[in-house]
Amino acid sequence: MAILVVGSVALDDIQSPYGKVRASLGGSATFFALSASYFTQVRVIAVVGEDFGKQHEDVFRKHGIDITGIEHAAGKTFHWSGEYGENPNDCKMHDLQMNVFEKFQPKIPAGYRDSEYIFLGNINPELQSEVRKQMRGAKFVGLDTHPFWIETTPQQLAQAIGDIDIMIINDGEARQFAKDNNLLRSANKILALGPKALVIKHGEYGATIFFQKGAFGFGGHPFRAPALPLDEVRDPTGAGDAFAGGFLGYIASQGKVTADVFKRAMFYGGVMGGFAVERFGTERLLTLTRQEIDARFQLFREMTHLE
Amino acid sequence: MAILVVGSVALDDIQSPYGKVRASLGGSATFFALSASYFTQVRVIAVVGEDFGKQHEDVFRKHGIDITGIEHAAGKTFHWSGEYGENPNDCKMHDLQMNVFEKFQPKIPAGYRDSEYIFLGNINPELQSEVRKQMRGAKFVGLDTHPFWIETTPQQLAQAIGDIDIMIINDGEARQFAKDNNLLRSANKILALGPKALVIKHGEYGATIFFQKGAFGFGGHPFRAPALPLDEVRDPTGAGDAFAGGFLGYIASQGKVTADVFKRAMFYGGVMGGFAVERFGTERLLTLTRQEIDARFQLFREMTHLE
Repeated sequence: MAILVVGSVALDDIQSPYGKVRASLGGSATFFALSASYFTQVRVIAVVGEDFGKQHEDVFRKHGIDITGIEHAAGKTFHWSGEYGENPNDCKMHDLQMNVFEKFQPKIPAGYRDSEYIFLGNINPELQSEVRKQMRGAKFVGLDTHPFWIETTPQQLAQAIGDIDIMIINDGEARQFAKDNNLLRSANKILALGPKALVIKHGEYGATIFFQKGAFGFGGHPFRAPALPLDEVRDPTGAGDAFAGGFLGYIASQGKVTADVFKRAMFYGGVMGGFAVERFGTERLLTLTRQEIDARFQLFREMTHLE
Repeated sequence: MAILVVGSVALDDIQSPYGKVRASLGGSATFFALSASYFTQVRVIAVVGEDFGKQHEDVFRKHGIDITGIEHAAGKTFHWSGEYGENPNDCKMHDLQMNVFEKFQPKIPAGYRDSEYIFLGNINPELQSEVRKQMRGAKFVGLDTHPFWIETTPQQLAQAIGDIDIMIINDGEARQFAKDNNLLRSANKILALGPKALVIKHGEYGATIFFQKGAFGFGGHPFRAPALPLDEVRDPTGAGDAFAGGFLGYIASQGKVTADVFKRAMFYGGVMGGFAVERFGTERLLTLTRQEIDARFQLFREMTHLE
């Protein structure tokens, strides 16, 4: 089953103690699409500027990603510039230029209309709701957000998640959105707003999925996937979108949404998020093989299973 | 197999947003002993003052814990007073009176000499080394410490862990001791000092065990146990010692130290640490049943296993 992603495509400058890159292809839709492409067919809706060239298109094409929905606008592509410290949670933003992304109005190509799986990446929650409305026939919708939207448009965000299947955010965002320091209480408050399930990512500690009671055949308990301890987190950019790509890409590839599929999807999400941070930008996501992915999946199993 | 614990017995004043208790029986040896008592026979070495009465002794006796090694000294029992915030990681210490604990010199009763399993709880690392030396025949030795010893006696601590099987500490302590912000690098630096294995506890995110290559039949990867997300952490006091009690108590009960035993021990550690924080002081550890413990163990399995 094909999965449709709406989000940003960016050209980023990134620096960390392990090196730096300039005008590196990034953005939420890019990381998601590359990650999900190892599992299923991916369709992208985004906007780029005149500095987005054939070499960038080729990155998507080599992974069989459909970019009919990438709109070309006059101006420059969304640009972010930042620097990570030795602690990957410390990040200084040097520059942020919205450019063509500022007036982004997602348009759904005719060929995308039959998409049953959708990921609403980090964009304005009103646009997320808009896309959701236009894709009434979708079977399964995931959504990510960003502290900026939680702070500036919390009501619009609450509305957007009222009509989706799963929200995928991190610890800090969950606490910020629920205004509660306790993670379980935060999860329950967010689930009360509508989504059937909620994934909270804990960075190096893995991720937990919480469910509305009985949703997708799950019992009353959450499910937790690990993360592989890494000695070098070279560049955390895109880890969350790579997680979402592995998670939703695997679900879409299965064509059914059961408790067993969710559990494996959590493992695949953790696997892809972990790969993303091992190299700069999208580098590691470009060269993976399904064999490497499944070997890491197997390692996750050995790291958590009693037998 | 009996397990011997050396540590503190205390009478604590504890406050949190969920209530408060005064002169509550606590200390590292107490939490460890109560937790381990659900798995195996426990022997305690500690010192108490004149305010430690029959009602306190009865708590240990009711759990079949051998307190021959609890020395009674003139003066008052070790006393700690502290207050936790809504975030259980925020703790203000109001008072600390070492009292009889200040001159604690562990003495090993004749009846304890055949102990094959030992837990060196949070005391001066020189005393930990001393006890280790006197118990040459021990088969398996675990050790905990505290930021105070890491800061003030790092060399003595490095010496103490050179001669043990497993060190059990938390994230912050591992980073502080290894002087490294990265957890995997910290683990490797600590393992290089001698212990065959290292458990790092991540609080609400569970715990990870790292091994020296090939130790105990483990492969090159760590093993991770979850923690149950809780909506109320009423009192975090003693969680680490309860973890150690479940972990080492289970290992001692099996009489063999294999990879499979370690994995299950990690789960039991997480189970007991989680129970400890659900109520004030030792309250929850006093009233547990093995059935409740095994039900929680089963829940941990469901929370982490794919099938």
